[in-house]
Order: sequence, then C-alpha cells, then structure tokens
Amino acid sequence: MPKLILVRHGQSEWNLANRFTGWWDVDLTEQGVAEARAAGALLAERGVLPTIAFTSLQSRAIKTLHLALEACGRLWIPETKDWRLNERHYGGLTGLDKDQMRAAHGEEQVRIWRRSFDVPPPDIEPGSEFDLALDPRYAGIAVPRAESLKLTIERVLPYWESAILPRLSTGETVIVSAHGNSLRALVKHLSAISDADIAALEIPTGQPIVYDFGDDLRPLGERYYLKDA
Amino acid sequence: MPKLILVRHGQSEWNLANRFTGWWDVDLTEQGVAEARAAGALLAERGVLPTIAFTSLQSRAIKTLHLALEACGRLWIPETKDWRLNERHYGGLTGLDKDQMRAAHGEEQVRIWRRSFDVPPPDIEPGSEFDLALDPRYAGIAVPRAESLKLTIERVLPYWESAILPRLSTGETVIVSAHGNSLRALVKHLSAISDADIAALEIPTGQPIVYDFGDDLRPLGERYYLKDA
Repeated sequence: MPKLILVRHGQSEWNLANRFTGWWDVDLTEQGVAEARAAGALLAERGVLPTIAFTSLQSRAIKTLHLALEACGRLWIPETKDWRLNERHYGGLTGLDKDQMRAAHGEEQVRIWRRSFDVPPPDIEPGSEFDLALDPRYAGIAVPRAESLKLTIERVLPYWESAILPRLSTGETVIVSAHGNSLRALVKHLSAISDADIAALEIPTGQPIVYDFGDDLRPLGERYYLKDA
Repeated sequence: MPKLILVRHGQSEWNLANRFTGWWDVDLTEQGVAEARAAGALLAERGVLPTIAFTSLQSRAIKTLHLALEACGRLWIPETKDWRLNERHYGGLTGLDKDQMRAAHGEEQVRIWRRSFDVPPPDIEPGSEFDLALDPRYAGIAVPRAESLKLTIERVLPYWESAILPRLSTGETVIVSAHGNSLRALVKHLSAISDADIAALEIPTGQPIVYDFGDDLRPLGERYYLKDA
C-alpha cells in the first residue's frame, strides 16, 4: 500500500530565536537534530521505511531528511530537492524578531501576516540583507518577494501533482521533509481543509504524519501521527 | 571551466578494524566524519563549489558527501546515488580481518586478491552473513558475487560516460564521493594509467582530487590535490 510520510524539519535556530525565517537558510538546533533522529528511529521501529524522498532547497529540511534516513537505515534512497517545497517566503518580515514586529506594526497586523490565507507580507527590499534573489541556489528560479499561504499552495500543489503523486502510483513509500507552510499546503489538499481553517493548523516539528493511499491515488482515510499508530 | 572533484569517503569503521569491506555498509568513524568536514571546508576555502553531486549506495560515501556539502554551504545541490559507484565487491573476503586472511591463505594470495587487476576474490557464499543479494537497496540490480578491479571498472566507466560526463559538458562543477576502487576506475581512465600500475595507486581518504576539463570534455592537465592548488 503506498504511503506518504510528511515530516516538518526539527527546531531551527530561528524557531528558537522567534524570528521570521521563510526562505532564509538557518541551521537546526541541537534539539532539532535530536528531533530528526527520533523521527527516523520511529520510522524504523514501526517498519514504515521510505523508498523515495523529496525535500526543499533549505538546509534545515535537507538535514532533517538526512538524519531521519540515517536513523532508519535508508540513506541510500533516491532524493530530490526542489524549491517548490520551500517554506513560505516571509518577504520584508524575513529576519525580524516576532516581538519587534508586534511592537512596530501591532499584534493584529502581525497576526494577519502570519495567519491570513491570502494577505502576503510586505515585499522584501531588493538587495536587502535577507534578499536571496541572487543566491546561486535559486539561479533560474523567479524567487518570490513575499508569499501568502495561498501563493505558497499555488507552487506546492503543481509540484505535488507532477513529481510526488506519480511515485505513489508505483507503490512507493514517499517521505517529504519540508516546512510548516509547504506541509500545510499538502495537508490542506489531502484532508480538504478550508481556506479559513488551514492557517490555524499547527504541524509539529519532527513528528512523522502518515497518509495511506489507495490504488485510486486518494488517501484511504485521515492522516495520523505515526507515533499514535 | 568544468571541474571534476573526486573524494574518497573518510575513514570507516572497517578501515580502522582492518577488515575487507567491499559492499558491506559500515559507518564512518569519528575521524572519518572530521575528514569529510575538512574536505568541505577546503572546497569552500578554495572557492571550488560543487554544483551537482554523485555518490554510491553506501552510507560511508553518502555521509561523506553530505558532511562535505554542508561544510561548503552546498547541501542544496542535486545529488544522485548509484550502485555503479559502489566499492569493489570483495566476495567471500567480505567481513574478514586482513590479518586472519593472511594467516589462512598466505600473504601472497591475499596480495593477489587485493592488488591484481583481473583476479577476483572467491565468490561470496549465497545467504552468508555478508551477502547483500536480498538487501532492498539492491532490488533490481544483479549484485556481483565478487569483483576484480577490472570488473569494477567495467561498471564504473559506463556510468561515468552516461551520467557524469554529460554534466561536465554543461559547465558544472561535479563532485563524486565514492570509494578507493570506484575512484581508481575513474583516475585510471582520466589519467591513462596502465592495468599494471593502477592497483598500486593509493587514493587518500577525504582528500579532494580535482581535474579541470576543457571544452572538448577531456582533462586539461593532470589531476591535483586541491590542498596543493
């Protein structure tokens, strides 16, 4: 039976520092490393062993994948990295401390930027410290200047349809190591969550979420945490 | 200018224990991890930054690649794993301590098995402890039962021609993280080393070797250690 395993990267340095990260490339903390290894150990323990992997172009998701795969003895499976699995681009908020933002723009504005479905944050300033438009990793890619959750979904889902879903049709156990918002995009689609409800859905770090798939390439039932299976 | 970077994995547990490893999947030692990170730090220091990566299906080469890429900020480049970059398959010698082998078969026979160009070691016993024929990582692959260096070359070179060389033609900086004998195969080909001389060529662990390539897809000159560049 084809399976889809979703894993949000372990705690990052900026999760810990309470800063808007988005596309900025921060490392995992020690706790994040431990979370990633524990995710892999759980996969091994439950015998849910990935046969193919997808991740973003961001180190925290790639490292989470590698640590998890090592912990379940699957470092050798094929792995594809794609920017369309990147975190939502937080635009001009990138790098800012969430408390500073609240002080400057007000609690309500920050809540809207973080949690509304289709209001993007302000664009990132071209050439600013956190602008990645010229990063060689994004050569040939139209790097967004800011993304709402809606815009994030609009680049995650075509990738899901064209690259990931076809692998489920061949019976693979697919692991996707990604980010809070790129995984929200997938869960919204697969669990038919409304625009109004999706922003409130929290995806915990380092906790494998599984969908079992039927032969018709639809989830057989609701998603579940592997730890509860 | 296209470049090819060859890196032999850092010290493994069985390098240290003096056992024939071949296709058996052993981990890096702490020293091996440090060698891999140092290789990546050297790439960063010299500004020789890989844009695409190839490695084997064996954890020690994959981990060396990941640690090196992380150390030079290139974890995000595309990465392809293929069994044809695996170490030479040591057949029935796999898992044996080199000193025990010498005691049982004599110094000369062991030297021939290790260093002759075309004499393969005895076949691995089907179903024996170190037989990998049923390992899921090799599903669909005719796992060899023993390989001479000649047999190793015969599966490395077609992969070089079909998968790696075409990427140099597009101007990439290619990194290959692999094993003593799969790298010997490449160096023999690129530096035109004779059958008689190749077995004596030692490839040090964790030490990036570079070939610069011309537009005609031939090496522009002899290979060099990046540390000496």
